[in-house]
Amino acid sequence: MEYSKEIERILKRKKIEVGNRIRVIRGKEVFEGLLMPRIELGDKSTLILKLDNGYNIGIKFDKKTKIEKIGRGKKPGKIPSLKLKGKRKESISFIATGGTIGTHVDYLTGGVYMCRKPEEILATVPELEEVVSIKRALRPFTLASEDMTPKEWKKLAKIVARELNSDVKGVIITHGTDTLHFTSAALSFMLRNLNKPVALVGAQRSPDRGSFDGRINLLCGAHFAKSQIAEVCIIMHSSINDDCCFAIRGTKVRKMHTSRRDAFKPINDLPLAKIWSDGKIEILNENFRERNDSKVVADTKFEEKVALIKAYPGSNPEIIDWFVKKGYRGIVIEGTGLGHVPTSTLRKEDSWIPHIKKAIDKGMVIAITSQCLYGRVHPYVYRNLRILSSSGAIFCEDMLPEVAYIKLGWVLGHTKNKEKVKEMMLKNYAGEISERII
Amino acid sequence: MEYSKEIERILKRKKIEVGNRIRVIRGKEVFEGLLMPRIELGDKSTLILKLDNGYNIGIKFDKKTKIEKIGRGKKPGKIPSLKLKGKRKESISFIATGGTIGTHVDYLTGGVYMCRKPEEILATVPELEEVVSIKRALRPFTLASEDMTPKEWKKLAKIVARELNSDVKGVIITHGTDTLHFTSAALSFMLRNLNKPVALVGAQRSPDRGSFDGRINLLCGAHFAKSQIAEVCIIMHSSINDDCCFAIRGTKVRKMHTSRRDAFKPINDLPLAKIWSDGKIEILNENFRERNDSKVVADTKFEEKVALIKAYPGSNPEIIDWFVKKGYRGIVIEGTGLGHVPTSTLRKEDSWIPHIKKAIDKGMVIAITSQCLYGRVHPYVYRNLRILSSSGAIFCEDMLPEVAYIKLGWVLGHTKNKEKVKEMMLKNYAGEISERII
Repeated sequence: MEYSKEIERILKRKKIEVGNRIRVIRGKEVFEGLLMPRIELGDKSTLILKLDNGYNIGIKFDKKTKIEKIGRGKKPGKIPSLKLKGKRKESISFIATGGTIGTHVDYLTGGVYMCRKPEEILATVPELEEVVSIKRALRPFTLASEDMTPKEWKKLAKIVARELNSDVKGVIITHGTDTLHFTSAALSFMLRNLNKPVALVGAQRSPDRGSFDGRINLLCGAHFAKSQIAEVCIIMHSSINDDCCFAIRGTKVRKMHTSRRDAFKPINDLPLAKIWSDGKIEILNENFRERNDSKVVADTKFEEKVALIKAYPGSNPEIIDWFVKKGYRGIVIEGTGLGHVPTSTLRKEDSWIPHIKKAIDKGMVIAITSQCLYGRVHPYVYRNLRILSSSGAIFCEDMLPEVAYIKLGWVLGHTKNKEKVKEMMLKNYAGEISERII
Repeated sequence: MEYSKEIERILKRKKIEVGNRIRVIRGKEVFEGLLMPRIELGDKSTLILKLDNGYNIGIKFDKKTKIEKIGRGKKPGKIPSLKLKGKRKESISFIATGGTIGTHVDYLTGGVYMCRKPEEILATVPELEEVVSIKRALRPFTLASEDMTPKEWKKLAKIVARELNSDVKGVIITHGTDTLHFTSAALSFMLRNLNKPVALVGAQRSPDRGSFDGRINLLCGAHFAKSQIAEVCIIMHSSINDDCCFAIRGTKVRKMHTSRRDAFKPINDLPLAKIWSDGKIEILNENFRERNDSKVVADTKFEEKVALIKAYPGSNPEIIDWFVKKGYRGIVIEGTGLGHVPTSTLRKEDSWIPHIKKAIDKGMVIAITSQCLYGRVHPYVYRNLRILSSSGAIFCEDMLPEVAYIKLGWVLGHTKNKEKVKEMMLKNYAGEISERII
């Protein structure tokens, strides 16, 4: 991947190579950083510079742009790798799936690279082997968080179940953060008779940055994996202080910030525990499943023809007809407030109700959640809610929309019977429904 | 609307009428409350009872159910109405649009009723006339929050502009809470050259309940309407204490709880002010537009063919093709994390990228926001983001998905030119984009 001929000519003349530290001057603006290779689809005449804060920027190169070399920069070197000892400490299984925590900056390919072997991830946090001994390090696939699908959830659930039924104390999974809470919910439903802790760990900053959070997250994840809490939890920073993490139940958690290290927040639940990197664990919520001797079953039956859509002012209810036509079996609607959809007193054609009724008549399951995220939907407070409820839509209590989506896929994987679907949707399988407090 | 013949017979025998206080005994369960009339679509043999906590419940009536009358309950009476004096204090215009704040419990029709005249709403908070004098009370339409559409936003903007250009100090609008933040964003874009405060006020609890929050919200809204802050703001409880409110910028606010009185939270911004019901105002964010002498313009051109959709694991990208086919002009995508959509390394058919490219080629505008809600999208940190960005999708900085949706409709109402749309989407019109802090 080369820059434009003009740029390549100047780079050659100034003896600047990719990876070198350079200064770019453009009028009054001055940028310093490492020269990155051009990205595949980018503009050939835009220089890519990695700034000291870790971000890459593109600088349009024209006649007014000046470049000078100010240092050699970093060169792509051999990636360190940790030899697994597998003894001494309590042993766990370590599963690497991809994501920022498993990245390294490759100055040849540019930006952030994502195919570290588990041993390479472990090498960024060598102290980990003082907390646990890694019995097995596995890499079922290497995917960015955004590329995960139900197929990967199933694969992962099977591997985790196998590991939990072996002689390890628990499992750590490293994973991208974007859809970490989708995977945590999927594993929560798919891993039946859970016996040991499953720690899902990610990082919001890559290991090449001073603010890398994966170290503390991994150490706390290792302490969690040895704990008495037999739940699928996300273990990530509890605040922006780099000292401790929350263990948040896999069905009651959501990524609530694009970049902060404490992006994961419990929704409608307390975190189960606060965990310090030195091993101290403070239980914040006594309502959890204890470590036990069950044999875990990977119950991965899943109907992929489910969707998650949003109802909002001006939204087009015909989208529901489209999903029916496409053979979908279930839709989770993110309604407004207590679970409303537009009923459109003034213009009947805008109302969602006839479309929902028609879909339900054709055997589709419609489940209602709230785009408020916090709080609980309610089928009775207002007249429009009663109308929606009496159409046969299932009001999903205080479940998160994402969790209801995954649960509906899982439930429809087990039964197509309308009554049974409703019964299962409203049954608490993995802490996804909190008890009502009136 | 009558109950089943069996129930009606028993009610008649026991001289129980709708509105009476009754006790219902069903095995070990005992319920007390006011008997409500049967709802339109409900089961005829389910009794509707309004509990003392304000919620209605349905109790299946069968042979084991016993009913007894324990009091007369409340009877529908005349709704009090406040005579407008329109003098003494600084005057404002008061616009009632519907929602919980404008409800009364009608024991004849059951549950919550929503067609109070402005004078009736004002009668629930008579102290309001000690803060401001209501020059004009208007009711352009009476709609539940969930039934608002862009057509109502336009209508409302025109009325508000007219009022702001008259001799009042400011405007108060009462509105349902579910989509209050959609309306606040729409008014923020549509009211150009804003000169005076516009207070959007709602209530999470109806006036018949002890926990009614509309009183404090209205009083604080009135103080805001007299203030120096010429911004469209939502004025709602700042905490569950019933003492003061936040004034939150109309483009940086979201309903974040289904039922709490402090449901509205600022996202990626500080509240502009904290307002006490006695009139004290504490400025929390100096970055606001001051009261001025401009003439407000209602710039209501709006393209309704825009949509808001979510990208998530297992999502079907063909939904984009459907919107293209339906003649849509723009889609706002709630991506994951920094603005990702599935790129699907493993299964190409799951990738959103080709569908986004095709839509953009056909003249569709695709805008990217984050379902994290908090934080900012970024087109460069990861390779997949760069691919998405180079397809022509517009990354909407730290705009909320709902706000980007409304802004895109407003922008496309003004231009179809691709470059101009991008320029307008990334220009800060109403505080919707916060300055980047790196």
